[in-house]
Amino acid sequence: MTRKCADLGERQLVRKITKILGITEKDDCAVLDAGDRYLVWTTDMLHRETDFPPAATPWQMGWMTAAVNLSDLAAMGAEPLGLLVAVGVPPDAEIGFLDELFSGLRDCARRYGTEILGGDLDSHRELTLTGSALGQVEKDLILRRRGAHPGDLVCTTGSLGSAGAGLRQVLDQGLAKTELAKRLLEPVPRLVEGRALARSGAVTAMMDNSDGLALSLSDLAEASGLGFVVREDLIPVSAEVEEAAKTGEDMIGLVLHAGGDFELLFSVRPDGIEAAREACDLTVIGVAVEEGVWIESGGIMRPLLPKGYEHFRP
Amino acid sequence: MTRKCADLGERQLVRKITKILGITEKDDCAVLDAGDRYLVWTTDMLHRETDFPPAATPWQMGWMTAAVNLSDLAAMGAEPLGLLVAVGVPPDAEIGFLDELFSGLRDCARRYGTEILGGDLDSHRELTLTGSALGQVEKDLILRRRGAHPGDLVCTTGSLGSAGAGLRQVLDQGLAKTELAKRLLEPVPRLVEGRALARSGAVTAMMDNSDGLALSLSDLAEASGLGFVVREDLIPVSAEVEEAAKTGEDMIGLVLHAGGDFELLFSVRPDGIEAAREACDLTVIGVAVEEGVWIESGGIMRPLLPKGYEHFRP
Repeated sequence: MTRKCADLGERQLVRKITKILGITEKDDCAVLDAGDRYLVWTTDMLHRETDFPPAATPWQMGWMTAAVNLSDLAAMGAEPLGLLVAVGVPPDAEIGFLDELFSGLRDCARRYGTEILGGDLDSHRELTLTGSALGQVEKDLILRRRGAHPGDLVCTTGSLGSAGAGLRQVLDQGLAKTELAKRLLEPVPRLVEGRALARSGAVTAMMDNSDGLALSLSDLAEASGLGFVVREDLIPVSAEVEEAAKTGEDMIGLVLHAGGDFELLFSVRPDGIEAAREACDLTVIGVAVEEGVWIESGGIMRPLLPKGYEHFRP
Repeated sequence: MTRKCADLGERQLVRKITKILGITEKDDCAVLDAGDRYLVWTTDMLHRETDFPPAATPWQMGWMTAAVNLSDLAAMGAEPLGLLVAVGVPPDAEIGFLDELFSGLRDCARRYGTEILGGDLDSHRELTLTGSALGQVEKDLILRRRGAHPGDLVCTTGSLGSAGAGLRQVLDQGLAKTELAKRLLEPVPRLVEGRALARSGAVTAMMDNSDGLALSLSDLAEASGLGFVVREDLIPVSAEVEEAAKTGEDMIGLVLHAGGDFELLFSVRPDGIEAAREACDLTVIGVAVEEGVWIESGGIMRPLLPKGYEHFRP
């Protein structure tokens, strides 16, 4: 039988495609040599059915599109140079909807010191927003997914599970403006933290955790050719998430597998942890090891399966 | 009654959006200052229903996506640094379809000396391809839509109407591989010509004619704050288009209003026409005047209405 995309899932498909295109590096952004610095460059497509819960406001959809692209720049320690956005809009969308959507795009860009510089407008059956972000970073400061060493401390910014708990509130209660819902729909790209961490000289590898902690740890481990052990009791979780979770198991599911948090996940040289702490608020959640991705809970170590958000796997 | 996007049409909507975003320049690409040169940067979204006739092959859809983005770089006299592509694919698409699609993207990029550097893969109800192209151009060589002066000669590369005639063959006969169909589905980004024209120092304003000659002349006129007179008998039309057209009137409709040709449309200082001719094959089709866009045919001048391909106007 002829195989379909849905038979393979996003990650296997991406492996096939990168082979066709001859892409060998797997970072949050493509990296271009620009003489005295690197340009870093990314694109992300969001659309109505897959990425925006029904309650999301058009302003939030615009914000989110800019934010997820800027987050990829943050993950490499870069500062933004600008954004482009290609927007496909259903012809029966109201003009006011479009006003709000583009205001959200603009407001997010300006909040992080940059601008929407141009784009493309299309008529499209399903609302589709493709952002592209361009940034720059000094050559000696760039942070990639590869570079971690066994013994490095693995750290995260912010707290985890908020976007997952927010999604539940948005879907169950149709609320788009609660604290948790905003963590999902108005994500904060960690550009300030990413720059400060790059400047600290203490970070060995970095990415954003947009696909959830479990999948992101697996990606970081694969890129660096090693493993991680994280301690469940160290993972930072907000009081709102604790309250929203039905059980302890439910909570850890949100934290490990739900995705959408857009925090930075990174490894730090053991002797650099003070420098990293001075750069930004962070939490040490574990350590890099020779191989495997493990979670330790109550003295018991178990493998942390790379389960998280994946397209083509409904 | 609340107004919808379809009530305004693409061009009015773009005017609204650029106002929200604070964009004042209207060129084929966004322009970023990079010290000794400019970076030029564009994005274009193509999708199944709007941009790809049913007979188009997946390889052609990939090629076309890369080509239309590269054409925007060509229009500013830039050389490509790379492409990104965000692809939304229906989950029931066959793996072989994806292979061909990405081969088309890769082949077009490599044909013009560049690469697909990265991207995003999504599950999407309608096949949607958003490309983004980044290029560079020396500061004194960049060509914009503004800059033409009355008396400049208006010129085009290649011949016009081929893509429009090709579309008819593709739709009527389901043929995707005839000479004319390939002009539509395998467009040639005029990167070599664009660079050579920029280096000639003779060109005062430039864009690609992807929306058709009439609409593109109107855009070039508006950006430069002047007008154009073109002579119908000077417009280059291939023998294939002459043969495919039902009548003379039908042919001139394809040439003026059909779009999809991706030739360069540009103005040349009168004393620079020899230098421009040395740069590339071109045809002088008219002259820049103080105001209005006019077409002269058989000694009669009539206004050339800005009618062409426009989204939200079925």
